[in-house]
Amino acid sequence: MDMIVIMKTTAVAGDVERVVSRVSELGLAPHVSKGEFRTIVGAIGEKTPQFREQLEQLPGVDEVMAITQPYRLASREFHEADSILDIKGIRVGGPHVNIIAGPCAIESREVLFDVGKAVKDAGAAMLRGGAYKARTSPYTFSGMGKDGLQLLKEAGKQLDMPTITEVLDPRDVESVYEYADIFQIGARNMQNFNLLLEVGKTDKPVFIKRNPAASITELLMSAEHVLSQGNHRVMLCERGIRTFAGETRYTLDVSAVPVIQERSHLPVFIDPSHAAGKRDLVPSLALAGIAAGAAGAIVEVHSCPDRALCDGPQAVLPKNFIRLMEQIRQIADIVGHRVTLWGREDEQSRHPAVGD
Amino acid sequence: MDMIVIMKTTAVAGDVERVVSRVSELGLAPHVSKGEFRTIVGAIGEKTPQFREQLEQLPGVDEVMAITQPYRLASREFHEADSILDIKGIRVGGPHVNIIAGPCAIESREVLFDVGKAVKDAGAAMLRGGAYKARTSPYTFSGMGKDGLQLLKEAGKQLDMPTITEVLDPRDVESVYEYADIFQIGARNMQNFNLLLEVGKTDKPVFIKRNPAASITELLMSAEHVLSQGNHRVMLCERGIRTFAGETRYTLDVSAVPVIQERSHLPVFIDPSHAAGKRDLVPSLALAGIAAGAAGAIVEVHSCPDRALCDGPQAVLPKNFIRLMEQIRQIADIVGHRVTLWGREDEQSRHPAVGD
Amino acid sequence: MDMIVIMKTTAVAGDVERVVSRVSELGLAPHVSKGEFRTIVGAIGEKTPQFREQLEQLPGVDEVMAITQPYRLASREFHEADSILDIKGIRVGGPHVNIIAGPCAIESREVLFDVGKAVKDAGAAMLRGGAYKARTSPYTFSGMGKDGLQLLKEAGKQLDMPTITEVLDPRDVESVYEYADIFQIGARNMQNFNLLLEVGKTDKPVFIKRNPAASITELLMSAEHVLSQGNHRVMLCERGIRTFAGETRYTLDVSAVPVIQERSHLPVFIDPSHAAGKRDLVPSLALAGIAAGAAGAIVEVHSCPDRALCDGPQAVLPKNFIRLMEQIRQIADIVGHRVTLWGREDEQSRHPAVGD
Amino acid sequence: MDMIVIMKTTAVAGDVERVVSRVSELGLAPHVSKGEFRTIVGAIGEKTPQFREQLEQLPGVDEVMAITQPYRLASREFHEADSILDIKGIRVGGPHVNIIAGPCAIESREVLFDVGKAVKDAGAAMLRGGAYKARTSPYTFSGMGKDGLQLLKEAGKQLDMPTITEVLDPRDVESVYEYADIFQIGARNMQNFNLLLEVGKTDKPVFIKRNPAASITELLMSAEHVLSQGNHRVMLCERGIRTFAGETRYTLDVSAVPVIQERSHLPVFIDPSHAAGKRDLVPSLALAGIAAGAAGAIVEVHSCPDRALCDGPQAVLPKNFIRLMEQIRQIADIVGHRVTLWGREDEQSRHPAVGD
Repeated sequence: MDMIVIMKTTAVAGDVERVVSRVSELGLAPHVSKGEFRTIVGAIGEKTPQFREQLEQLPGVDEVMAITQPYRLASREFHEADSILDIKGIRVGGPHVNIIAGPCAIESREVLFDVGKAVKDAGAAMLRGGAYKARTSPYTFSGMGKDGLQLLKEAGKQLDMPTITEVLDPRDVESVYEYADIFQIGARNMQNFNLLLEVGKTDKPVFIKRNPAASITELLMSAEHVLSQGNHRVMLCERGIRTFAGETRYTLDVSAVPVIQERSHLPVFIDPSHAAGKRDLVPSLALAGIAAGAAGAIVEVHSCPDRALCDGPQAVLPKNFIRLMEQIRQIADIVGHRVTLWGREDEQSRHPAVGD
Repeated sequence: MDMIVIMKTTAVAGDVERVVSRVSELGLAPHVSKGEFRTIVGAIGEKTPQFREQLEQLPGVDEVMAITQPYRLASREFHEADSILDIKGIRVGGPHVNIIAGPCAIESREVLFDVGKAVKDAGAAMLRGGAYKARTSPYTFSGMGKDGLQLLKEAGKQLDMPTITEVLDPRDVESVYEYADIFQIGARNMQNFNLLLEVGKTDKPVFIKRNPAASITELLMSAEHVLSQGNHRVMLCERGIRTFAGETRYTLDVSAVPVIQERSHLPVFIDPSHAAGKRDLVPSLALAGIAAGAAGAIVEVHSCPDRALCDGPQAVLPKNFIRLMEQIRQIADIVGHRVTLWGREDEQSRHPAVGD
Repeated sequence: MDMIVIMKTTAVAGDVERVVSRVSELGLAPHVSKGEFRTIVGAIGEKTPQFREQLEQLPGVDEVMAITQPYRLASREFHEADSILDIKGIRVGGPHVNIIAGPCAIESREVLFDVGKAVKDAGAAMLRGGAYKARTSPYTFSGMGKDGLQLLKEAGKQLDMPTITEVLDPRDVESVYEYADIFQIGARNMQNFNLLLEVGKTDKPVFIKRNPAASITELLMSAEHVLSQGNHRVMLCERGIRTFAGETRYTLDVSAVPVIQERSHLPVFIDPSHAAGKRDLVPSLALAGIAAGAAGAIVEVHSCPDRALCDGPQAVLPKNFIRLMEQIRQIADIVGHRVTLWGREDEQSRHPAVGD
Repeated sequence: MDMIVIMKTTAVAGDVERVVSRVSELGLAPHVSKGEFRTIVGAIGEKTPQFREQLEQLPGVDEVMAITQPYRLASREFHEADSILDIKGIRVGGPHVNIIAGPCAIESREVLFDVGKAVKDAGAAMLRGGAYKARTSPYTFSGMGKDGLQLLKEAGKQLDMPTITEVLDPRDVESVYEYADIFQIGARNMQNFNLLLEVGKTDKPVFIKRNPAASITELLMSAEHVLSQGNHRVMLCERGIRTFAGETRYTLDVSAVPVIQERSHLPVFIDPSHAAGKRDLVPSLALAGIAAGAAGAIVEVHSCPDRALCDGPQAVLPKNFIRLMEQIRQIADIVGHRVTLWGREDEQSRHPAVGD
């Protein structure tokens, strides 16, 4: 898209339709974004100088802007208000803070259901668990695959929690779609563009983790790949960048939260578990992220971390997660946010988001 | 020091004296640290294997440990409880959270007193202001020097606030000592070892900022230089490390707070202003640091930042600082800490710290 | 693999066969590596303590070692001599230095053939050209796809040069296999493990670029994924890491060359073009890499870089490439290496490598 | 300086004098640089727009340029040709490559003279040795101080080699001036601006090492501090930056060499010893730097590194240094440079540099 067509507040539906069809005629791809007060039409394409004048003359059009940032649909310029996603009745983004928790990998029915129940009782809104694991070594456990997906689906149903799991391979998009509610794109796949395009073609939300060497612009460009395919439900996640500071596995770039929020309307989560690499540091980093205004956190919890098949040292124990959830709830309040307490008396957040 | 002599809880004063004099006889430097329950004697020196047995046989000695970390006096092993400093009646460290605020540089009486009054009214405990500025360019304002120190002293006196200012040169230690209450060692001088040794010879507290390329071990080693001279009142400050992430001036390594606290008894502050480099990001980073458990923050405030002679873009406006202080106070409570509200009804923090 | 079975120098073929079949019986995967003097059998699997004794008693076995590095087949311990690959009669690795050159992307028959002829005349041994391009933006040229592969195959045939091209998606492995001689795994896909496993199942050489956030251990683990599938023809490439130093696109970590050579038997190339991001810096970085002992360099060359559809600013002009090749040739000599001059009188390098 | 006054090629001495005195009158500091063909006068100061017109009207003035880079005297714009320094008859910079070698610290007369003789015989042009050592720990050897300086002076005299030693403290500038030929500013003091200003007031050359967190602009700004005091004999040195890559102590940023050469006229050295931290990697990095066009290298050599009091693991043995010098000499030739072979038949380099 080289242009944003900003409709007047008085524009009617027919005006928008006319702009859309004109944009298509010009060989550009139109993208409509309806705000509370006005509608904006993005027009993606290369040759535009002459088109701009043509579009500006259509009825209801207020202004046509050329834009120069490399990301477009992900930008605040394109969508001024915070995007609020509705995921199975749970609101994500804006003032809503959601905690995603669960084991790193799905290892067995028992662990998954135990941990799932524990995190739901503590107030987590969504359940995480990996069926396909990207492991550095070819000689280690790489996930239960489809059997794991099946268990995750059952756990989500029984606990009434939306589920999120990582998809590693474009060839797995179809089966992950069938079993889980949210696609997780791992840090190592943040620039696996074919994978991004595949999940962009679906209608399920996508949770993209920042690669440890990626700038914020690059992260937003990865979101743009998904958005450009018509899937507008994208969440971002800061999970630590690679720096010289070797005391933690990665360095949580907590400033990424306000920086992304300034540039983009998409919700920004943090992942304190992978940043820290050590259980004891997870609560401090989680609270730091929420205090900085994050839309939530994704936390690894395990009932028996010394037997975990994957990343045990960074998993929080259920009893400590209870205390952490309580502090997260209080800090969210102080910064004007509100934690979704799905498992409890949280009627308000059951209402579907308006105008998403 | 190659050894820590741990006295029994039943050891009496004479036992400690005997260990100290024996350590001296052996050609080692003794360092006594009295805890609530037991006393520990550090013995610094090179050849020790044979000495260990000798010391273990003295009355009242419980155990003699050899240590291998490169820092010693700064370590938790050496001083298990949090160090709580008493700075003009204000307690620093442990559960106490202190906010240091003021302009980057001392530019004029008017700005300094105006900003000082504003930050005190908002709840800041200490006043900052630079008289000697380390400036990258030889062609820019480098501080008012002694005239600035004089103004800072007057402001501190009138506002009843301890003052902190940077010392850049061993030759200035004497005059800074005369005018200010706390020596600040800037990030660029974190490994200016002669400067560290000079301030270590004084009895005024030292606030050491982490160099943007320094590991946490290196920061603790810089503290060790001060401690090794007998000055035990050291505070540390994370102010952002240098990473590829160019959206902020530096990357605030918020995990440094819990990591240092695990390894050292010294209070750890954060500096959100220099990390961010932009005013709008300062509150998020300040809150993140306090949520992560920091002993305080040092924040640049300016009443007229567009006319500031130094780092104007990162200075917070007084009106925004009021709101920030309120949020800091609330978040500190949630993590079990307590903000010193010096300018207000804060009787409790006027009591001198015990056993420091 | 948990063990390396080192055969005696006097062991005969039957001894090796017996070890291999015993390893298989024990449920481990055998991997035979024949050196000039002795044969080593790797045994990959989990439960081994009891097996070790059993294997040590077989005829011809000298020693059985357990190994602890996370990478195994990639290690010097496993294969002590430099691996020398034979790629269509060209030797790669050991003392042989090979220059791979060509345009970033295949854009047209004309440019590809022009540049190909120019680089061959200058002494390049292999031809590069991208048909599938990983592009940060979804709105930019992403390669000619199969049409590009077809052109590359024709150019390679006409110029008698082995060809290398990037594969981005496991679904493209089959078609890239059909058209090109070497699979390139780009930096963004270094940890796309499914892709690595797919190319590992083929019998064509694999050229893996280091991700800008990857440690050398992680790079060797990625090689291990390919090696573990039975494909032993792996080349590595340092192409710049992400650091704070913003004057170049990435920071070429030239020390990676000797560090990898110490740990691994695999050939290590450098990519000065992507590290620099600017044409003027490419020669200095290329010469630095060759002086540090690299097995070669991959250089982007374009006859008309200001019209290139991809990465034009870093492409060297053919006339400058001629001079660069001459300096590379001379520097390689000084460090005891020898540039393959495929297009010229280079009879020696046409001999197939022995014992690869 | 806000302006560069470019004199006409026909300008006579009186014209230059008139410009200089007018610049002074305007309250700006003049800085004259005489080139082979024309003279340039830098005018440093703040308020200039109105002055520009005034200066342009003076006789002999060709052009007055305002400049915007933060460094000025260090820039190519200010001094287009490479600066060639004359240090006791040895030419440094331009096509001249000089190797500085010696022990890390001066430990004893014997070691210093032994190593000094060995490196001179091998072809090193200058002798290094630390008398004041910046050591991370307060409990380790910190140099012999003045006794070390005295030994260095004697060694330099006996071997007829210029000497270089680090100065850590503004209070030591006078004594280092008395004993050594070149001031070394260590990486940790690169932004110790008072120290830079002090050595800038002397007439001895200054060798500034890049701080591991410093950008190239910051390094040039440190040079500017020295240059601004009237000392024009400045050399720069890349010695490794701090990155996540933990296999080496620091990451040698070899691209800094051509990047600095593009921006500045000052000679750029590399320090392979501190970058690598390991003896075995030093030759590769040294050759890489020379191949990239460096003006020289500073290499730690020790006859008995396992007994060295400082940085033994990175010291090269004399016998390996001989081979390294030979390769350096050959590679310098290939890139159009020429190694000063002071101890040998190097008559050409004894001529003093012209027009420095």
